[in-house]
Amino acid sequence: MDAHEPTPGAFELFAAGVAEGGRQAYTEYRGSMEIRARLAPRLAAFTSCPVDAENGLIITPGTQGALFLAVAATVSRGDKVAIVQPDYFANRKLVEFFEGEMLPVQLSYEEADEGRAGLNLGQLEEAFRAGARVFLFSNPNNPAGVVYSAIEINEIAALAGRYGATVIVDQLYSRLTYMDVTYTHLRAAAVDAENVVTIMGPSKTESLSGYRLGVAFGSTTIIARMEKLQAIVSLRAAGYAQAVLRSWFDEPAGWMAERIRAHQAIRDDLVSQFRRIEGCNARLPQAGSYLFPRLPRLRIAPGQFVKALRLQAGIIVTPGTEFSPHTAASVRLNFSQDHAASVAAVERLAALVERYRA
Amino acid sequence: MDAHEPTPGAFELFAAGVAEGGRQAYTEYRGSMEIRARLAPRLAAFTSCPVDAENGLIITPGTQGALFLAVAATVSRGDKVAIVQPDYFANRKLVEFFEGEMLPVQLSYEEADEGRAGLNLGQLEEAFRAGARVFLFSNPNNPAGVVYSAIEINEIAALAGRYGATVIVDQLYSRLTYMDVTYTHLRAAAVDAENVVTIMGPSKTESLSGYRLGVAFGSTTIIARMEKLQAIVSLRAAGYAQAVLRSWFDEPAGWMAERIRAHQAIRDDLVSQFRRIEGCNARLPQAGSYLFPRLPRLRIAPGQFVKALRLQAGIIVTPGTEFSPHTAASVRLNFSQDHAASVAAVERLAALVERYRA
Repeated sequence: MDAHEPTPGAFELFAAGVAEGGRQAYTEYRGSMEIRARLAPRLAAFTSCPVDAENGLIITPGTQGALFLAVAATVSRGDKVAIVQPDYFANRKLVEFFEGEMLPVQLSYEEADEGRAGLNLGQLEEAFRAGARVFLFSNPNNPAGVVYSAIEINEIAALAGRYGATVIVDQLYSRLTYMDVTYTHLRAAAVDAENVVTIMGPSKTESLSGYRLGVAFGSTTIIARMEKLQAIVSLRAAGYAQAVLRSWFDEPAGWMAERIRAHQAIRDDLVSQFRRIEGCNARLPQAGSYLFPRLPRLRIAPGQFVKALRLQAGIIVTPGTEFSPHTAASVRLNFSQDHAASVAAVERLAALVERYRA
Repeated sequence: MDAHEPTPGAFELFAAGVAEGGRQAYTEYRGSMEIRARLAPRLAAFTSCPVDAENGLIITPGTQGALFLAVAATVSRGDKVAIVQPDYFANRKLVEFFEGEMLPVQLSYEEADEGRAGLNLGQLEEAFRAGARVFLFSNPNNPAGVVYSAIEINEIAALAGRYGATVIVDQLYSRLTYMDVTYTHLRAAAVDAENVVTIMGPSKTESLSGYRLGVAFGSTTIIARMEKLQAIVSLRAAGYAQAVLRSWFDEPAGWMAERIRAHQAIRDDLVSQFRRIEGCNARLPQAGSYLFPRLPRLRIAPGQFVKALRLQAGIIVTPGTEFSPHTAASVRLNFSQDHAASVAAVERLAALVERYRA
């Protein structure tokens, strides 16, 4: 029914969790110790940095749940928080909810050469110098799907270390990286591992969103605070669903490679289509399933065009203004769909661009 | 494996939800409209008051998730909030998290006659007069399992109406009421239905805790705010798990009656046991599966006795201080366990009381 199926065996693990009954339903608030013990070495291997199963890892209801708790545990009223523009739109809303003060740092993903995401590191240092205590960013779950280079990650780590700042890095989609892309994990580069929280989850790449699972790992101090908060926010990730994590990072041989191949093929076709639209700028996403093309000048306002896409072409996109005040001319598409249907959708989009071209 | 099994068919509904795929995984943030449309008339019938499926109902990750969002949507820094002593311990922590100011209202459940919960209504009015904008209480999910009488509920509704206050009522366990108990729903008595949010969920009575499901319903304004917050707190209750709600309030004939009968039998035996302990005061719970006996004077401090229960008798209880500063001599037990094992546990508890009696 869906274009990209959940990882094989997920449902069977859930069913086994149900069969375990109360023991699986009522885990610790930070999640089942047995499951954390299984995940910790896998997350350590993936990120090239040790993970403390007992004190440095929490299971949450989705990565959104992890993000909320991580920000709640680190940001108080009036705290300065550096966030990237453009980035995942909820980051801004989380800082607003906790009454933090946002210090934007630009990601010049269009101008940067292919080997860099384009983060303005000078601006990041200015933010730290101005008192930012927390830096929150997504790699590669930003709208353009760009992967931060080793140089950028090492510099973020060095700056955070120098200014004693905490970094929360949302690594959703970091397993879905395309050919020839090197992904550098911030936590492995950190000066002080206690100042880094890494967030991941199996909702997107692994298509397990229906179970609502995420994890945060790293700083034992922050994870401890997150667990205390989870006790009043939602108690725990659904106990039965936690059982599904037993197979995370342990998928059948070749499964992840095939998932990446399928997405890369869609990405390549769609980017070619966008590049054929005159005046359209589409950077090649290096990971994930988002495309963030900047459209040519149109006769109608961006918001109206997004509406026209939905009503006239049956295409749902997220307006660029959700990610940054500077990306109103862009739209974000999620191409984790059926390949042929995605190509057909972008054809309809291209026709609509011509209809409304200025 | 567990003493009280989940409602029949729950797992099959979950499995059907998984088979539906992305449509069931990615519901609206407030939960699947189709499922809300099924639940609304059942919740309306149960509470004797209409429920607006589209605008007046949200599905949350457990009742804890609903409580968090309801308090988040109504309490800001410095707001005065009336809460009951003793009551569910997280209520206090939620008000603290949002930096509200607590105005305690005493529940004299030991002194009240059997027909009343014992809420000090004069104190509640004083709290409203002092500026409390929100009143948060649990009926019957308070440690003593007392059910608020019709007189008390009507007076709470009248006072809230007179002072324009919002009432959040946690009705977890309100389906598990014992013989001859009349349960009055606050929302049916409300002067202004827009000022009441009712919270329920199938985790306890229906033993579905492993799925993490709850609902909040009533005020359309507050529910709308709760949904906006849910989008940044956890996105939604797990989509597949929502499917389990299709059978909620639609259990096989006789199933709920049998669940109540089984719990009432345990309750009766345990209360008799506690009443045989000299100097022990145990009010008969009218609903739910909690017992909150006040123990006789002991030679050791209450915290030490709770520890002794765990280490010497293998009994886990929640210390009375979690619920109110005035109930240090009480302990809360959850008797939703195997009947014979529960009786044996209270025998061991009684022996330990004798060992440490002052």
